Amino acid sequence: MLNFEFKNPTKILFGKGQIENLGKEIPKDAKVLVLYGGGSIKQNGIYDQVMKALNGFEVLEFGGIPANPEYAILMDALKVIKEEKITYMLAVGGGSVIDGVKFLSAAALYEGDSPWDILTKNIRTEVGLPFGTVLTLPATGSEMNSGSVITRKETQEKLAMGGPGLFPVFSILDPQVVQSIPERQLANGITDAFTHVLEQYMTYPVQALLQDRFAESIMQTLVEVAPRIMKNPADYEAAANFMWSCTMALNGLIQKGVPQDWAVHAMGHELTAMFGIDHARTLAVILPSHYEYNFAAKSEKLAQYGQRVWGITEGTTTGIAKEAIAKTVAFFHSLGIDTKLSDYTNAYEGTAQKIKTRFTERGWLGLGEHKTLSPADVEKIVEMSY
Amino acid sequence: MLNFEFKNPTKILFGKGQIENLGKEIPKDAKVLVLYGGGSIKQNGIYDQVMKALNGFEVLEFGGIPANPEYAILMDALKVIKEEKITYMLAVGGGSVIDGVKFLSAAALYEGDSPWDILTKNIRTEVGLPFGTVLTLPATGSEMNSGSVITRKETQEKLAMGGPGLFPVFSILDPQVVQSIPERQLANGITDAFTHVLEQYMTYPVQALLQDRFAESIMQTLVEVAPRIMKNPADYEAAANFMWSCTMALNGLIQKGVPQDWAVHAMGHELTAMFGIDHARTLAVILPSHYEYNFAAKSEKLAQYGQRVWGITEGTTTGIAKEAIAKTVAFFHSLGIDTKLSDYTNAYEGTAQKIKTRFTERGWLGLGEHKTLSPADVEKIVEMSY
Repeated sequence: MLNFEFKNPTKILFGKGQIENLGKEIPKDAKVLVLYGGGSIKQNGIYDQVMKALNGFEVLEFGGIPANPEYAILMDALKVIKEEKITYMLAVGGGSVIDGVKFLSAAALYEGDSPWDILTKNIRTEVGLPFGTVLTLPATGSEMNSGSVITRKETQEKLAMGGPGLFPVFSILDPQVVQSIPERQLANGITDAFTHVLEQYMTYPVQALLQDRFAESIMQTLVEVAPRIMKNPADYEAAANFMWSCTMALNGLIQKGVPQDWAVHAMGHELTAMFGIDHARTLAVILPSHYEYNFAAKSEKLAQYGQRVWGITEGTTTGIAKEAIAKTVAFFHSLGIDTKLSDYTNAYEGTAQKIKTRFTERGWLGLGEHKTLSPADVEKIVEMSY
Repeated sequence: MLNFEFKNPTKILFGKGQIENLGKEIPKDAKVLVLYGGGSIKQNGIYDQVMKALNGFEVLEFGGIPANPEYAILMDALKVIKEEKITYMLAVGGGSVIDGVKFLSAAALYEGDSPWDILTKNIRTEVGLPFGTVLTLPATGSEMNSGSVITRKETQEKLAMGGPGLFPVFSILDPQVVQSIPERQLANGITDAFTHVLEQYMTYPVQALLQDRFAESIMQTLVEVAPRIMKNPADYEAAANFMWSCTMALNGLIQKGVPQDWAVHAMGHELTAMFGIDHARTLAVILPSHYEYNFAAKSEKLAQYGQRVWGITEGTTTGIAKEAIAKTVAFFHSLGIDTKLSDYTNAYEGTAQKIKTRFTERGWLGLGEHKTLSPADVEKIVEMSY
């Protein structure tokens, strides 16, 4: 097991009806900015529940934060925060809205020239403007971690940021919100969370026995509830397990003491930036090729995953490992998620070369758990994903 | 899944050599009281490591906190804290020292007449005197939770307290400390942590699929590493998994969203108070009888446990459930832990009756996940444990 530090101060309020407890978590004298996305919360009743719970607070709102939260739009929100002297933010949405609010949390107190530097200069935020979240879409785990990914259309970039000051003060997880999520986004959420676990697990064994089992527990639970969720998102018990699994998949716990990969995300982000493909679907495109390309390095862990998550009992290590990849692809397909780039765009030729160039230009650190994947490796992996 | 709230702000520094990072976690101007137990830390080098890491701080020390932290001794420490205007405490020890420091954290800022009221009047501590811990004995999980159990010899009582103000600010978990722990305490630690998990798991299913799997993960890991630890406590990888499993067994995570039992602890505490039997061993005495007595209510979960933790694949639900209890007893025996009260004392006659009376006098709330166990039930369970 590797040495690690772990601290996660976010307070979770989980379950039916928890939105009404919102007001107790925010300082009475706060001036609150409620931020949300495309407005679906106004159709499904969540907006009304939130506003009712904020009765008595001074509240402003900012809607229209898009999927893959866009820098230019967030800069408009930042203006409101500064002009109105907002003291507390409430993100009502999925990972995009929460990630956007994390950027704002950092940017509101940032003293440098341009908030864009936070992303390009890897500036860690030690203290941010406080915020809570009401999660409307289980997927990214952003509701209980301190990371964020921001997109800038202008430069076709998607960059990460974070820091201990960016944990939500609290997050409200009411599984009843799952019933109004469209099928496409449910499939994305399951795929995203499942891939998060794999990025922190599918490396090589370091005798982190408990972390491995926790990771496998999350994947087993997602595999178990996925068909129930896809069939009937109003199945509360399935929704509750789906929601808590997504949070636990990326709240820091399972990554402590183990090597991590994250190459799938690095490559996937480029596909979203270039083609606008849903984040989760880009992961499903890259992941199988990545595991096949790095098969030798990952085969021991792939076999453990095959045995414990997919119940494969027969075969050699290599055989079980290969079957485990096939089972993963079949799982994505069972959710209606395509796993080849050509399923999403006809203009895929040259993509691998382009990503290779972008990575090289941005300063290359090496990808994967050993930081050894070169731009040439990335090119081959992306090509295998066509 | 039941509704829940979860927040755990303790920072964990885990791994080889983490003690030297102690000083970074404590405010520079703090006046620190270092508290410890019987002095074994002076033999095994931990005391020296801690004092070296505290170089530059104003440091006082208070040793001699006994197993089952005694109220009278803690009151002496409280005097030191008040007279010396201590601003920060550092607990160096196992659960007893840490629990004692939690009591002091609460008592130092308590404004009522007598700190004993904190225990007898169930006063929750919202803000305590800040403290960190250096864990020297994995077992109780106290290093990452806000609960404490205090003993008062005068009245032969063992009472619990807690509150959100009693989380350690930080805890240092260096698995290298395990190598100097005596065999008896290693066995106790494994038994204690294993039973903690069972108290939060062995109730009835509520479709908390992920929590169940996390609980099973901890138990599987303890079962896997126990023989390695008992054979060679200097096996770092085994020690690391043992240590992290003990912490995760009682840091709040696996108990969220599920019913909890804790009747084994309630009865076990009385055996420690009456006979001075090691805490963990009292759990091993009570647990099998408790599960047999409440077999019908727990059989579904016992069978799940038998299948997933002990790998029992054949038999009816009842058969697997019964075998699961037998496997648990055999596991305790494999650690050298006796599971009958008569193994520990010849004066066991009348114990059940006496515990029944004590519980009745203290005001009866009902024990177990349904709060339905009466004093008469307790009497029968304790009798079955003779």
